[in-house]
Order: sequence, then C-alpha cells, then structure tokens
Amino acid sequence: MSDAVLAVHRAFYDAVETGDVDLMASLWVDDAEISCVHPGSHPLRGTAQVLRSWTVLMANVGYIQFFLTDIQVVTFPRGAAEPTTALVSCTENILSGDGLVSAEAFSGGKAVCTSILVNQPAGWKLWSRHASPIAELPIPDPED
Amino acid sequence: MSDAVLAVHRAFYDAVETGDVDLMASLWVDDAEISCVHPGSHPLRGTAQVLRSWTVLMANVGYIQFFLTDIQVVTFPRGAAEPTTALVSCTENILSGDGLVSAEAFSGGKAVCTSILVNQPAGWKLWSRHASPIAELPIPDPED
Repeated sequence: MSDAVLAVHRAFYDAVETGDVDLMASLWVDDAEISCVHPGSHPLRGTAQVLRSWTVLMANVGYIQFFLTDIQVVTFPRGAAEPTTALVSCTENILSGDGLVSAEAFSGGKAVCTSILVNQPAGWKLWSRHASPIAELPIPDPED
Repeated sequence: MSDAVLAVHRAFYDAVETGDVDLMASLWVDDAEISCVHPGSHPLRGTAQVLRSWTVLMANVGYIQFFLTDIQVVTFPRGAAEPTTALVSCTENILSGDGLVSAEAFSGGKAVCTSILVNQPAGWKLWSRHASPIAELPIPDPED
C-alpha cells in the first residue's frame, strides 16, 4: 500500500522535472477544497488554482531535479488493510540549472514537504501539499 | 464532527497562549511517527521530541495570542459519517508581547499551518503539524 502511495508521490516530482502538465493534472483530486502551500506563500485552494500555479512554475524553470530524503509514509486509519488517507513527508534537495535553487517561489535548495493523499477508485491522488523552506534554524535544546 | 476537530485545533493554540504543557501533551497522539514542522525547520518526529520542542518554545515566549483566519476543515474518508482523519489548515496571525512576531523559530507575524488529526477512542488528537512563514511572495499570474 505504501508503494502505491510513494509511486504517486514520486510521479508528482517526475511531472515537475519533465514539465508534464498532463501528468501533474492526473495526480490531483478534482475538488474545490484541495490545497497547496508553496514555500512562503498563502494556501491555494481548488484544483484549477493549484494546477495553474504548477503550470506557471513549470513554465518558469529550466533544468530541475529533486533528490528526496527522509521520506516517511503513514496511512490512516492506522493499521487498516484498506487505508483511505496517507501522509507523506520528505525533505526535497533541489538541483536546478541555475544551481541549488527552489523551483517554487522561495529561494533555497532545501524544503520540507507534507503531502496528503486519498485513496480513490482510480487510485491514490494528491489532496494537499504543504512545502516550506528549511532555514537551518535549530530548535534550542534544553539539555545544552 | 468538524466542531470536535476544531475544538482540539483551538485547544492547541490555547495551550501555547497559556503555556499549559499538560494541555499540550493531552492533544497529541503518543506515537513515534507523529511529526511537527516548525517554521523554517526540519521535521521533528515522535511525541517526546515534538512535546519537548513546544515546552522549550513556550518557556521562551511571554505574551502571545493567535488570531486564526482562513480556517478550513476537511474530514476523510470524504462524506463519511464517522471520519477517521481530519485536515485543518489556517492562517495564524500572531500577536506577542514583543509586537507581531512568531512564537516559533522563524520571525514574522503570519504563518500558514496544516494540521492532521486522527479520531481515537479518547477523541480527536493531533498527528501532524506543518507551519511555515508567509513571505508575501505571490505566485505570478499568467493573465497579468
């Protein structure tokens, strides 16, 4: 089950890397309540608005590649044989033709992303995505 | 059902505003896979690490108040009478004793937050939280 979730999650990055607008559109639930938070931005809501933002972003980036690390998948309900919802978090290490910069609105080569996917008749689809830049500001450790 | 989700979501902010560590601890699922992304930071994983970060943050902030706007609640499975999972997103407008600054590690008076809650026997609990600063960088509009 996690493999099917991860395949869709990876296909999202493939779509950005190859500028494949049709693939990108196929990955999202079509619903006015889906959401996408680009780094540093307000949430976008609804499939039309979210896909439009990706089309613009993909049109404005040349070579780009995502190296994903620290990938975690959790499915809900916990322990269910047929989960309905999945949470994927990862760190995006972004390499582009301009050097290490983000494909999204906020500069910086590293972002953390939390995605929600839902299990639909056609398979797992993206419902929500929240990405933010990593500023390398550690939380102070009380034991230090 | 959304009311019960929102009550827990609001209690989280009450805990931060009042520095109530016990209330904060009561709101999270106790599991090694829960996660919390503070603005600008890497994900923290596991209840012990997440609660420790909040204890430190609450100890280091004086007066603080959150005005939540643009709150959206979606429950999964969509349309189910007994949903198992909920997604809450909101904009946090943060007022503190030092003026409009964030309670978390990243400066700035506005953040966007995506929270995942799960329905447990004891009620809705927080599973994941991802907050990021709003940098007011608009996504370019292709029609402009």
